[in-house]
Amino acid sequence: MKRGRLIVVSAPSGCGKGTILGRVLQDRERFFYSVSATTRAPREGEENGVHYLFYTREAFERCIKGELFLEYAEYCGNYYGTPLAPIEVHLNMGQDVILEIEVQGAMQIREKRPDASFIFIAPPSPAALRERLTNRGTEDAETIEKRVQQAEKELTCVDAYDYCVINDDLDTAVADFLAVVRAIELKVK
Amino acid sequence: MKRGRLIVVSAPSGCGKGTILGRVLQDRERFFYSVSATTRAPREGEENGVHYLFYTREAFERCIKGELFLEYAEYCGNYYGTPLAPIEVHLNMGQDVILEIEVQGAMQIREKRPDASFIFIAPPSPAALRERLTNRGTEDAETIEKRVQQAEKELTCVDAYDYCVINDDLDTAVADFLAVVRAIELKVK
Repeated sequence: MKRGRLIVVSAPSGCGKGTILGRVLQDRERFFYSVSATTRAPREGEENGVHYLFYTREAFERCIKGELFLEYAEYCGNYYGTPLAPIEVHLNMGQDVILEIEVQGAMQIREKRPDASFIFIAPPSPAALRERLTNRGTEDAETIEKRVQQAEKELTCVDAYDYCVINDDLDTAVADFLAVVRAIELKVK
Repeated sequence: MKRGRLIVVSAPSGCGKGTILGRVLQDRERFFYSVSATTRAPREGEENGVHYLFYTREAFERCIKGELFLEYAEYCGNYYGTPLAPIEVHLNMGQDVILEIEVQGAMQIREKRPDASFIFIAPPSPAALRERLTNRGTEDAETIEKRVQQAEKELTCVDAYDYCVINDDLDTAVADFLAVVRAIELKVK
């Protein structure tokens, strides 16, 4: 069986990354979504094993020692990591594995996995991102400004990625994302 | 204006490359097809400036000396070359430039143009290629065998390309080709 492709996706918060991936991942035959482990507290509506694997700090550090993560990073005081075993299983099953992680983690994978491809999802502009976060209404003004600053910082990292999908119009962004994924499948190894 | 992308396409003869490109190039706003120069005699139905620029051997060699080709090669006793000027004009106009050339020429471009992307179109198998050429009925048995042997040799060159589109089903191949082109447009430079 043809081995699947490892696809790493990063985006500043509020880019619509979740919405795009939600649409893409409807094809459950073709894609496996790698669920990250984290030590941060679950937010309302987040389920263990679906949105994240919620670990205690102790359990997470045991897994680091056991080399059970493809990558891990500390971000805003919490650990985030990518469990290695499920990725290999699903790649061998011929599925594309989608890894959604922040820039710091993605750069660790870039070094370890020459077989991986890297997609960056970008908002049209920092101003548009601020507007989206404000309209979402789930964060206060200070948090939004922090996010926008973080996004501006992360946008400077786009050069470390292979492809950049700009989420201006959602349908176009989903189509672009799927075109990039198909091209990755057709990449000569 | 955003600069277009330089896209180099190669395929063994009889892969359906012409049919795929014919469909793709219907979008004349988006694509510019780079017409090659050649010293070989026009075949029936071939028009100067459409299928090829038909040069005399003397004129071709004058252009070589003037460095007016992006690449050139001798193939089956004839020169084939890619005029440089129109490519730059159309890239600057924001169009993707599609260059259809054989492997030898493509490898010259690989060295000269790090901005170019390389797509290989492959038949499902040498047996399928032989069947297609036989059904086409425009070549005799000896020519067909030469073509199949040439194709087998060229297939070993696929590793030098970035993407490989297999032409098993035409609609799928066209969709795959367009997905690869879109991904190339979204590539981080």
